Amino acid sequence: MNFASDNVYGIHPKVLAAIDAANKGTSASYGYDDYSKRAEDKLSEVFGKEVRAYLVTTGTAANGLALSALTPSYGAVLTHAEAHACVDECNSPEMFTGGAKIIGLHGIEGKITPAVIEKTLKGFIRGEHDPKPAALSITNSTELGRVYTPADIKALSAVVKARKMKFHTDGARFANAVAALDVKPAEITWKSGIDVMSFGGTKNGGMLLEAVVFFDTDLAEDFLYRRMRGGQLVSKSRYLGAQMLAYLEGNLWLDNARIANGHAKRLAEALKTSNRIRLPLPTDANEVFAVLPKVLHDKLQAAGAHYYDWMPDTLGPGGIKDDEIFVRFVLSYATPPKDVERFVGLIKELSST
Amino acid sequence: MNFASDNVYGIHPKVLAAIDAANKGTSASYGYDDYSKRAEDKLSEVFGKEVRAYLVTTGTAANGLALSALTPSYGAVLTHAEAHACVDECNSPEMFTGGAKIIGLHGIEGKITPAVIEKTLKGFIRGEHDPKPAALSITNSTELGRVYTPADIKALSAVVKARKMKFHTDGARFANAVAALDVKPAEITWKSGIDVMSFGGTKNGGMLLEAVVFFDTDLAEDFLYRRMRGGQLVSKSRYLGAQMLAYLEGNLWLDNARIANGHAKRLAEALKTSNRIRLPLPTDANEVFAVLPKVLHDKLQAAGAHYYDWMPDTLGPGGIKDDEIFVRFVLSYATPPKDVERFVGLIKELSST
Amino acid sequence: MNFASDNVYGIHPKVLAAIDAANKGTSASYGYDDYSKRAEDKLSEVFGKEVRAYLVTTGTAANGLALSALTPSYGAVLTHAEAHACVDECNSPEMFTGGAKIIGLHGIEGKITPAVIEKTLKGFIRGEHDPKPAALSITNSTELGRVYTPADIKALSAVVKARKMKFHTDGARFANAVAALDVKPAEITWKSGIDVMSFGGTKNGGMLLEAVVFFDTDLAEDFLYRRMRGGQLVSKSRYLGAQMLAYLEGNLWLDNARIANGHAKRLAEALKTSNRIRLPLPTDANEVFAVLPKVLHDKLQAAGAHYYDWMPDTLGPGGIKDDEIFVRFVLSYATPPKDVERFVGLIKELSST
Amino acid sequence: MNFASDNVYGIHPKVLAAIDAANKGTSASYGYDDYSKRAEDKLSEVFGKEVRAYLVTTGTAANGLALSALTPSYGAVLTHAEAHACVDECNSPEMFTGGAKIIGLHGIEGKITPAVIEKTLKGFIRGEHDPKPAALSITNSTELGRVYTPADIKALSAVVKARKMKFHTDGARFANAVAALDVKPAEITWKSGIDVMSFGGTKNGGMLLEAVVFFDTDLAEDFLYRRMRGGQLVSKSRYLGAQMLAYLEGNLWLDNARIANGHAKRLAEALKTSNRIRLPLPTDANEVFAVLPKVLHDKLQAAGAHYYDWMPDTLGPGGIKDDEIFVRFVLSYATPPKDVERFVGLIKELSST
Repeated sequence: MNFASDNVYGIHPKVLAAIDAANKGTSASYGYDDYSKRAEDKLSEVFGKEVRAYLVTTGTAANGLALSALTPSYGAVLTHAEAHACVDECNSPEMFTGGAKIIGLHGIEGKITPAVIEKTLKGFIRGEHDPKPAALSITNSTELGRVYTPADIKALSAVVKARKMKFHTDGARFANAVAALDVKPAEITWKSGIDVMSFGGTKNGGMLLEAVVFFDTDLAEDFLYRRMRGGQLVSKSRYLGAQMLAYLEGNLWLDNARIANGHAKRLAEALKTSNRIRLPLPTDANEVFAVLPKVLHDKLQAAGAHYYDWMPDTLGPGGIKDDEIFVRFVLSYATPPKDVERFVGLIKELSST
Repeated sequence: MNFASDNVYGIHPKVLAAIDAANKGTSASYGYDDYSKRAEDKLSEVFGKEVRAYLVTTGTAANGLALSALTPSYGAVLTHAEAHACVDECNSPEMFTGGAKIIGLHGIEGKITPAVIEKTLKGFIRGEHDPKPAALSITNSTELGRVYTPADIKALSAVVKARKMKFHTDGARFANAVAALDVKPAEITWKSGIDVMSFGGTKNGGMLLEAVVFFDTDLAEDFLYRRMRGGQLVSKSRYLGAQMLAYLEGNLWLDNARIANGHAKRLAEALKTSNRIRLPLPTDANEVFAVLPKVLHDKLQAAGAHYYDWMPDTLGPGGIKDDEIFVRFVLSYATPPKDVERFVGLIKELSST
Repeated sequence: MNFASDNVYGIHPKVLAAIDAANKGTSASYGYDDYSKRAEDKLSEVFGKEVRAYLVTTGTAANGLALSALTPSYGAVLTHAEAHACVDECNSPEMFTGGAKIIGLHGIEGKITPAVIEKTLKGFIRGEHDPKPAALSITNSTELGRVYTPADIKALSAVVKARKMKFHTDGARFANAVAALDVKPAEITWKSGIDVMSFGGTKNGGMLLEAVVFFDTDLAEDFLYRRMRGGQLVSKSRYLGAQMLAYLEGNLWLDNARIANGHAKRLAEALKTSNRIRLPLPTDANEVFAVLPKVLHDKLQAAGAHYYDWMPDTLGPGGIKDDEIFVRFVLSYATPPKDVERFVGLIKELSST
Repeated sequence: MNFASDNVYGIHPKVLAAIDAANKGTSASYGYDDYSKRAEDKLSEVFGKEVRAYLVTTGTAANGLALSALTPSYGAVLTHAEAHACVDECNSPEMFTGGAKIIGLHGIEGKITPAVIEKTLKGFIRGEHDPKPAALSITNSTELGRVYTPADIKALSAVVKARKMKFHTDGARFANAVAALDVKPAEITWKSGIDVMSFGGTKNGGMLLEAVVFFDTDLAEDFLYRRMRGGQLVSKSRYLGAQMLAYLEGNLWLDNARIANGHAKRLAEALKTSNRIRLPLPTDANEVFAVLPKVLHDKLQAAGAHYYDWMPDTLGPGGIKDDEIFVRFVLSYATPPKDVERFVGLIKELSST
C-alpha cells in the first residue's frame, strides 16, 4: 500500500514500448530529431493552438527554465507558500532565473486568490528597493490536491496582467487537473491567461517526461539557449520525444489521470466515513489530505500503509492537536486497486476499534 | 554511413533491457532507490576505490555541477580551448559555478601541456583583479580524439596541485580512453591526481547515462544540494541507476569502446593511404580528424557519408588551404561495420580518380 | 522637520575634513593604501580583537558580500521579515550569494527569537529539496528601532551554532545600538557569537562609510576576491579609509549616536503623552514607530513634518484601524534640536485639539 | 615620479569643493536628489542628446551593470583581450550579467578591428551550443593607450549592428580620448553607434565619479532595479551628483585630460630619442608603453620612477628579448610637471651611458 507519491510507480507499458520502438537506426541529436518535433506538434494539437514545446528531464528544471523566461534577475515571482518551486526545489528557481525572488503566498484552502495577490503587490511600495513583480506561478492541480478552475485562473490572470506580469502553471500533475475538471486543456491554460507551463508526465506514467510549453510563443525566443545553458539539452533527445508522443497518444495521459483521481476519491470517501478522521481540504484530484489521530496513524503504518506526514502550516493556527498528525496520500493510475481496497478496509476496521 | 557523432546511435540492447527489468513494482524516488546505490557501489568497484557517484541526465550538467564543487564564483577553470565545457555548453558552466571564468588554453596536438598551464598561471599577476585559479579540467579522450596517458595526467596534476587547484576530467568518452590505453580506470583518474570526473556513458550505449564521480569524497559534501539545485535530481531515479549497472556489468562499456576505437583505426588507416588526405592528429580513440580536398569531400557527401566539418583553429596558422576542408569522423560500437567498409572502399575509389 | 531617514542629512564636518586632509600627494590604490590599513587596525582596537575589515561603498553591498562568505548558493539565510536584506535590497543578497534563499521570519516586538528560528528550522525536513540552513542575519539596532542585547544575541547564537550555521549582524545603525545599550562593541558582536558584520557609518555622519568586518577571520579568506568581483573595490580607496578613521576617532561615532538616540527618546516621550497616539514598539535607539489618527497625521504633514508611513504587518492582525496610520520617525545626530522641539510642541498642540 | 596609474593621484580641488558645497541641509536620498538629476541633465548637454545617466561608485560596477543591460545570461560579450572587463575585474562582469561569457579578442596595435570580430563571429556555428553574440565592448581610450576614432567606431558598429548586437564603451579614460581626438563627445559615442557607456571620471579628478550613460534610452528600462540589485545605489547620492557636476562644469574634465595627454606626449618623445628604447604602440592619449633594457629599467626604478611592467602578450611572438621588459607609464593632469621633466632628463642621461 504505497501512497507516498505517484513517482514511486514505474513507466507505463505504452511509454516504455515507445522508447523501445524508437531504438532503431540513427537519429539527429540535441533536439533536432523527428520525435521531438512531432511531440511539439502533438502538444499543439492537444492545446488547440500552436505552441513551442521544449523537452527537459525534470519538473524542477522545467519550472526554473520556464520562470527564467518570465522574470528578470531583479524580479519577483509569486507562488503559493507550499508550491514546489517555492519550497521543494532547493534554490533551483533562483539559479535558473539568476537570483529572482520567489515569494510564497498563503492560500485559502490551498489555492491562491486574487485578493492575496493584490494585498501582496500593495506592499511593493519601495520602488527599486523592492524586486519588480514579474510573474505569478500556480500549480494545477496544486500541491494540496486542489484544482484551479478556468474561472479561478481567469480571475488571477486579470490581476497579474493588469500589472504586466506573466503567468505560469506548474503542471506536474496537470493531467489530474484536466481530468478532474473535465475540460479541454486549453481551458485551464492559454484561454484563461496562462503564458507558459511546465507540462509534466513523469508522475503519470513517464520515465523522464517533462516539457516547457509556451502559449505566448514570443516568450520562447532564445529558449533553445536557455535549455542548453540549463544543462537540459539531451543528446539522445528522440527518447524524450517518443515518451511524450506515447503519453499523449489516444489520451493515455487523461485515462491514467482519471484512474488516479478515481482512486483518490474512493480513498477520501472511506476516510470521511470515520469520525476519528478529518479531511481539511476537498479531494479535487489525486491527492488526499487528512488529519488522523496518531494512534490510528501508527496502526496504519504497522499494517503496511506508506504515506508522508505533511507540514500543517496550511491549516492555520490550531490546525491539529498534539495527538494528531496531518498526512498526505497520493494515488497513481498504477496504484493496485487491491491496495486501495485493502486500505479502505483497514480504515473501517481501525476506526471502529 | 553516419559518422557525425556517437550520439546519433541508440541505446545498447542490454541497457534498454535493464530499464525494462527495473520497471516493476514501487521504488524509492529522488535518488534514494536501490539501483542508484548499487550503481555507486559498482563505480567504486570499477575504480578500485570508494567513490561518491551522483547520477545526472546530461554531460553538460555533469560538467557544470562537478566544476561547481571545485571553483568558487570568483575562480577560474582552465580547459582546452576546444573543450566541451569551454565552447559547446553555451554558458552552462558559468551558470552552475555562479559565474566562474572558463579559460580555454591552446593545446599541443590537441592536448594541454604543463608548460601551457604554467605560462597561463604566470599571467595571473593582478591579485584579486584576476580570478582565483581554482581548477583544471581535461577531457579524456579529448575533443580532438587524443588520449591523455597516466604520465600526461600526473604531469598536469603536479602543476595544478602545486597551486592548490583541483583537477577534473570530462569523461564523455572515458571508455574510449580506457580502452585505447588498455589501463585500469584508476590509472587515468585518481591514481594520477584527478579529484572528480564526469563519467559519461550516453555516447557509448546509454540513453541518459551520466554521473559525477568524486574520488576526493570530501569534495562531495553538499553535492546532493548541488544536484537538486541544478535541476538534475530525477524523481524516477531507478532508471538512471539501472542503465549505469547494465553499462558497467561484464565490462560492456569497455567492449563497446574497443569496437568503436577499432572502427576508427580502420577508417584512419584507409584515409592515410590516400595521398590527397592528411591526418593532422593521431587517432588515439574513436574520433578521426582529416584534411580533405573539398572536391573529395563533396563526392563523399554525395555518396552518403555524414560527418561534420570542424574549426581548423587547432591546426594553427596556414593549417588548411582554401580548397581544403577540416573534418571529423566519430565511430561508435553501433556503427555498422559494413558502413566502415563501404567508406573505406569509397576512399580508395575516389582517391585514385 | 525632516524625520524621514538619517540618510537625508549630510557628512559630519570631521569626516569631511578627513577626506580633505587625505587629499594630498599620491597613494596606493585599490585598497592597498595606508588609510585603509589603519582603518582596519582602528576597527580591531574598537572591537578589542584582531579583525579583518573591508571597506565598501554601500550597506547593501556590505550585507550581500558578507552573506556571500557565509552561505553557499544552495543555502538559506534567515532574517527578520522586515530586515533590509530581506525587503529593501531588491535581489541584491541573491546576486552576491549566487542565489541563496533569504527567508524572512516574523519577530516578536520587532525582534527574532530563538523559538521562531527553531520552529523555522524544524520545517526543513525535505533533505536536499530544502536549501541548507547556512546563516542567521540580525540587524542591530533593528529596522523597527529595537536593540538586541548581549543576552538576546547569545541566545540566538546558541540555536544557530548548534546547527553549524553562521551569524551576521547588519550594523547599518550599529552605533545606535552600542550607545543605547551602553556596552562595549565586542559585547554585541563576537563575544556573543557574531561571525561577521556590516559596519555602517553612512547614516551616522559618513559619506560612503561602510565596512564588512570579520570577527571569525578564517571566513575572510578570499574576501578580497569577493569585494573585487562585487564591483566594490574602490580605486581611490584612501578616501574610504580616511572617513572610517575620522568616524571612529575620539568616539565620534558613539557621540553622534547618543545624540540621535536622545532626540528619539525626547520625541517618543512627547508622543506618549498624547492619548490619541500609540507607540506599539519600545524606542530603544533612534527610530520611533507610532500609530496616529490619520487626521492628526495630515495636520503634522501640513505643518511641515516629514516622515514615512510604514507597513503595519509587524503589528499583527487588527494592528491598526481604518482611520489610523502606522509611521516611522528617524532621528539623526544632525537633526536640528529646534526641529525636535517644534515637533514636540506640535504634538502637544494638536493632541489637545 | 609616480607613473603607476592615474588613480594614485587625488581629487581635483574643484570636485572636492563641490562635495563640500553640497554638504548643507537635508536632501532626498537614494538617487532622488537634485544633484543626481542635474548631473543627468548636464550629461545630456555634454552629449548633445537626452541620455539616461546613473551614478555608481566604481568603473567595474559601471561596466558590469551596463553590460547586464545588453546581454542575457546566455549571451557573449566581445572585448579586447586586455580590456578591463576581460582581465581586470575578477569575475565581476560574469556576476552582474548572470554568467555571460566575456570573450577577449586579439587586437591589431591595441585595437579591435572589424575583421577580428567577423572572424570570431564566424566561429559561432554551433547554434545554441554557443552563447548568443550579444554585445561588443570597446575601451576608449584603450588599455593600451590607443584611441578609437569615429571612423573606427562606425566600422565596428556596422559589424555588430548587422548581427543585432549592442555596443558598449568603457570610458574609464573617456576624457583622454575626447581630448586626443579633439572631437565632440557625441562623435565617438552615439553618433558612431555606441548604445551605452561607462563614463568614468575617477581617474581624471574624481573621488568616486562613475556613471552608466544610456544613449539608447530604451535599454535603460529597469536600470534603477539593476543598480539597486548591484549594491550600487548610494544613500547619500547627492555627493556623487555634485562630483559629476563639478567635473563637467566649465570643461574641467577635458582640461584635465589635455594636460595628462600632453604629459604623455612629452614623455613618449623623450623615450623615442633613446636608441635603447622602443615604443611598440603609438601614444594616443595618456598612457605610454615602452620596451626597455632591463638594466635601464633597474636604473630608472633606483632613481625613483614608479611604473608597472606589463604583459607583453600584445606584442606578439618574439615581442621582447630576455634582457628587455615591457612597461606602462600613465600620466595624470595631477602629475607634477617637474616629475615629467626629471624623468625626461633621466632618460637622456641614462641612455647615453
